[in-house]
Amino acid sequence: MPEPARNGEFALIAALRRRLGAASLPGEVHSGDDTAVLLPPASPLLFATDVAVERVHFDLAFSSPADAGWKVAVANLSDVAAMGGRPTHVVAGVAGRGTRLLEEVFEGLLEACRAYETALVGGDLSHSEQLFLSVAILGQAPPSGAVLRSGGRPGDELYCTGPLGAAAAGLSRLRQDGRATGRLVEAFLRPRARVREGSLAARLGASAMIDISDGLAQDLSHLTAASGVGAELEGVPVAEGASEQEALSGGEDYELLFSVAPGTDVEQAFAREALAPPVRIGRLVAEPARLSLRGEPLEPRGYSHGFG
Amino acid sequence: MPEPARNGEFALIAALRRRLGAASLPGEVHSGDDTAVLLPPASPLLFATDVAVERVHFDLAFSSPADAGWKVAVANLSDVAAMGGRPTHVVAGVAGRGTRLLEEVFEGLLEACRAYETALVGGDLSHSEQLFLSVAILGQAPPSGAVLRSGGRPGDELYCTGPLGAAAAGLSRLRQDGRATGRLVEAFLRPRARVREGSLAARLGASAMIDISDGLAQDLSHLTAASGVGAELEGVPVAEGASEQEALSGGEDYELLFSVAPGTDVEQAFAREALAPPVRIGRLVAEPARLSLRGEPLEPRGYSHGFG
Repeated sequence: MPEPARNGEFALIAALRRRLGAASLPGEVHSGDDTAVLLPPASPLLFATDVAVERVHFDLAFSSPADAGWKVAVANLSDVAAMGGRPTHVVAGVAGRGTRLLEEVFEGLLEACRAYETALVGGDLSHSEQLFLSVAILGQAPPSGAVLRSGGRPGDELYCTGPLGAAAAGLSRLRQDGRATGRLVEAFLRPRARVREGSLAARLGASAMIDISDGLAQDLSHLTAASGVGAELEGVPVAEGASEQEALSGGEDYELLFSVAPGTDVEQAFAREALAPPVRIGRLVAEPARLSLRGEPLEPRGYSHGFG
Repeated sequence: MPEPARNGEFALIAALRRRLGAASLPGEVHSGDDTAVLLPPASPLLFATDVAVERVHFDLAFSSPADAGWKVAVANLSDVAAMGGRPTHVVAGVAGRGTRLLEEVFEGLLEACRAYETALVGGDLSHSEQLFLSVAILGQAPPSGAVLRSGGRPGDELYCTGPLGAAAAGLSRLRQDGRATGRLVEAFLRPRARVREGSLAARLGASAMIDISDGLAQDLSHLTAASGVGAELEGVPVAEGASEQEALSGGEDYELLFSVAPGTDVEQAFAREALAPPVRIGRLVAEPARLSLRGEPLEPRGYSHGFG
């Protein structure tokens, strides 16, 4: 029962088609048909989706529509990064109040796609009262195979690709002052997906990996549960200006958490690729579900909606 | 800024993970990690997305949440059918008011996936005030190559896989009586995707194909515009109980419209596979954008939101 498409909506669709342009590979078709047609990849496919809903995942009092578009794309890109994979294609569904809003959302989506060399190859638009964004992503697994959450072994060392809590601290700043700016606010509004870092962790033989979208404690508990192990954290890398609580449960930093065999020279490998040094935060232990921080029990608290 | 997941939401995620079950192919991972991991296909990939929004695409006064889930899945399945392809995997994002509603939506999504032998391999859930569904689908192109909208040539014969207007007539019945039942109402609430028909049309060498989701006149105009041709319709196959206007502009029937070289024995090929006979409705002509029905100009009116 779709409502008649308005002229503005048709014009936006035409403009988006022009911006997306033709497929770059012979034999591929991107936007403009019933589906995109993509050449078959040589390695296994990665496939995931994330949604973002106004007043649940973002608030237009703090985030621009383009920020919301960027962020839902990054959430998807980060899922591929957490498998050690390379993102290749996305499709996007966006519903909102009027074409100007939809156009601004797509600005942010396209910025993120360009930044991560990922092609937006199709989508669907609709009117809605509450702004809703969905992105589905395709990626290619690394040659060594996708890094699952389930491969962690007792004794493996745990690394985090960077300090945590900046996004939560940025949100806190924005709640105090909707016009706040700076590094923490930027971390909240325009997070980065650690695609290069995830790819390198896969090449280093990471045994398990997950992106920290729901908070370190929560996402660590997903990794340890899938691997049937526990974890002892010696500390938590806290971003400058954030609290340890924000680092533990804030979420939305999109750093990667991975485990790797003891003795792997992770720091030097990252330095060789000019990537920021990952932080060793502890190790996996045999007791299932036992999570501790500096010897004290750690409660897996955080936020989760996905079942992917 | 996700809100804390409630226990009900976690329980639903766990229940969905159990229902989706393990991947059936060695080396594949479906739900339960950051992304699904799928074996690389031999033929080109088809990739698309469709969204459905409460009070825009469906009304819970007429459609159950499961009906809405079924229908958005079929809209996606139909896009793959319209390329002549075989649907293989979907991911779904659903946002709504409470876990019971989300669970019912997934009932319908899973029914459609089972009916079309397509695996639901991941998803994302959220709270929202307005119910929102998004599905992204992967499929495999047919061995002869995906059938685009753009390959139609003057002189090709136009076929439709079945009579049109039933869905629009069913909606009209429901608007008069929210409890109406019957074949037309069923066509509106639980449309079918013509996957076998699309596959056969590809094997018969269809030069162009599109699914009729926005109404025959609208979707024909998409096919002829992409092919740089016009079309002369001799008639419109009207479903029993529907009007010709409903058949021309109603949409949501999800029959396929395809063009094929003159003389192709389409009817017999469909009969051999025990498929309902397609209806020959006219032919493509050289004059671009010239659309006619029984010699009178035909206005491309209908509904469209996609830019895929």
